[in-house]
Amino acid sequence: MRYGTLSGRLTLFVPTGAIDVEKASGGRIGADPHAAYDDWDAFRAWAAQADPADAHPFDEADLGAPVPAPAQVFAIGLNYRDHAAESKLAAPDRFPPVFTKFRTALSGPVTTVALPDGGNTDWEVELVAVIGRRAERVAAADAWDHVAGLTVGQDLSERIGQLAGPAPQFSLGKSFPGFAPTGPWVVTLDELRDSGLDPDDLELSCAVDGETVQHGRTRDLLFDVPALIEGLSAVTPLLPGDLLFTGTPAGVGAGRTPPRFLRAGEVLTSQIAGIGELRQTFTSTLEGE
Amino acid sequence: MRYGTLSGRLTLFVPTGAIDVEKASGGRIGADPHAAYDDWDAFRAWAAQADPADAHPFDEADLGAPVPAPAQVFAIGLNYRDHAAESKLAAPDRFPPVFTKFRTALSGPVTTVALPDGGNTDWEVELVAVIGRRAERVAAADAWDHVAGLTVGQDLSERIGQLAGPAPQFSLGKSFPGFAPTGPWVVTLDELRDSGLDPDDLELSCAVDGETVQHGRTRDLLFDVPALIEGLSAVTPLLPGDLLFTGTPAGVGAGRTPPRFLRAGEVLTSQIAGIGELRQTFTSTLEGE
Repeated sequence: MRYGTLSGRLTLFVPTGAIDVEKASGGRIGADPHAAYDDWDAFRAWAAQADPADAHPFDEADLGAPVPAPAQVFAIGLNYRDHAAESKLAAPDRFPPVFTKFRTALSGPVTTVALPDGGNTDWEVELVAVIGRRAERVAAADAWDHVAGLTVGQDLSERIGQLAGPAPQFSLGKSFPGFAPTGPWVVTLDELRDSGLDPDDLELSCAVDGETVQHGRTRDLLFDVPALIEGLSAVTPLLPGDLLFTGTPAGVGAGRTPPRFLRAGEVLTSQIAGIGELRQTFTSTLEGE
Repeated sequence: MRYGTLSGRLTLFVPTGAIDVEKASGGRIGADPHAAYDDWDAFRAWAAQADPADAHPFDEADLGAPVPAPAQVFAIGLNYRDHAAESKLAAPDRFPPVFTKFRTALSGPVTTVALPDGGNTDWEVELVAVIGRRAERVAAADAWDHVAGLTVGQDLSERIGQLAGPAPQFSLGKSFPGFAPTGPWVVTLDELRDSGLDPDDLELSCAVDGETVQHGRTRDLLFDVPALIEGLSAVTPLLPGDLLFTGTPAGVGAGRTPPRFLRAGEVLTSQIAGIGELRQTFTSTLEGE
């Protein structure tokens, strides 16, 4: 199953198009994109028997953040060894750094993003897990059962803001408007497996104007999705609809010699094989106003 | 005006007791504690003419977090010079570190909190500002106009979790269940001023089993509420109902020689003059289960 947000409404995506969930379910499931998490099992059961004849063509510009208003957004730093090395920081041993991307930064998959004045905005393609069932003190072995599905995320990062001051500004520097594009939809684990893919070994990459700048596989996560859920849920319950940005592999602009950052006019595409693609076009702050 | 949450419902607090907002407004304003922010001006206008005869006595045990489900929780570190010094970190110059307390950590004012196993749980009394009107690129001079009111917060902090690893675990170490008590209510700025208090110079303190451990004044904030709103809203819009934990003055347990942390059975009271008091009783994890 692939589902997400189209024109602000909870939508199922099938090969022939988009199915409006509220209409097709006769109102049994609500139109709010978060209605999927009110009763995750009921939503899955309904989706399994949805009629492809209810599908209609759609415009990708109408896709919104698949989970637009999560109660909690967890984001993980330094979770690939090669990225920790290029960041000149030690790889985490006990647990990786956890920060947030503030909710107002969330957007859908195809957007225009204004570059902050005088900044150094960098890319970080990431696998994002969406929680489907409340997770509290969940063991890694059971963790996938609490995941609704997976989506693509870009953890856009303002390196000046992030790094200034006596402690790293992870959360703020990563939360400018539009700095958390997600989508194009959430893909469930069974759909990935049916396509012959392993949710623990997905290929992710991003490109600037067509030139690949990051390329990795989620099998190289230092703390994989189950380990992250075990560690986070030992501290704080994870709620249905919460997002988990799992960290980025090597290849960010700040790790290059000389550093390279995003410029107005450039287009960043971010992909995970089996899920889909994000596409961000950048403007200067002035153009973005 | 003082308002908050009683038995899960939006409530106005007057000298003679509590007024249920939905009932007293004849349903014009909803029962959800966040209904206050749907139209902040309408809520204020209604509250100004509420009838004290509608008030009833209440039990403090029924007080909940005055703002239980904020879209965003901003928390500020190292925002008093004496606390930065005791933390052995440089005081911030451009802007202080920003992190979050994850929403599941929020609670009401009078609670029992389980101490994490093998941890060092510390106290941090803080002034918490509640956003009333959306704030986007707001200048400090206009910032108070975007604040609904002020409440007391405890930024309970697990020092082992917070400090382990290659980068500080501010957000996670401060988000165990119950680690963000708030309340007992939100007090508006006009009410503070009518009581002869200056919202920019409030006295805050906390005590363990009656022994004062922190005592400060918000005039000593390195970045005061208007400066924080200017800086945060330059990056990310602040939404009605968002919380802003403004930082703690000196006196935390980790800054003592030898360090002192909370123990099962101890009672922590946290006060801001003109607003009210929080009271947390601690248990071991085992007792808390």
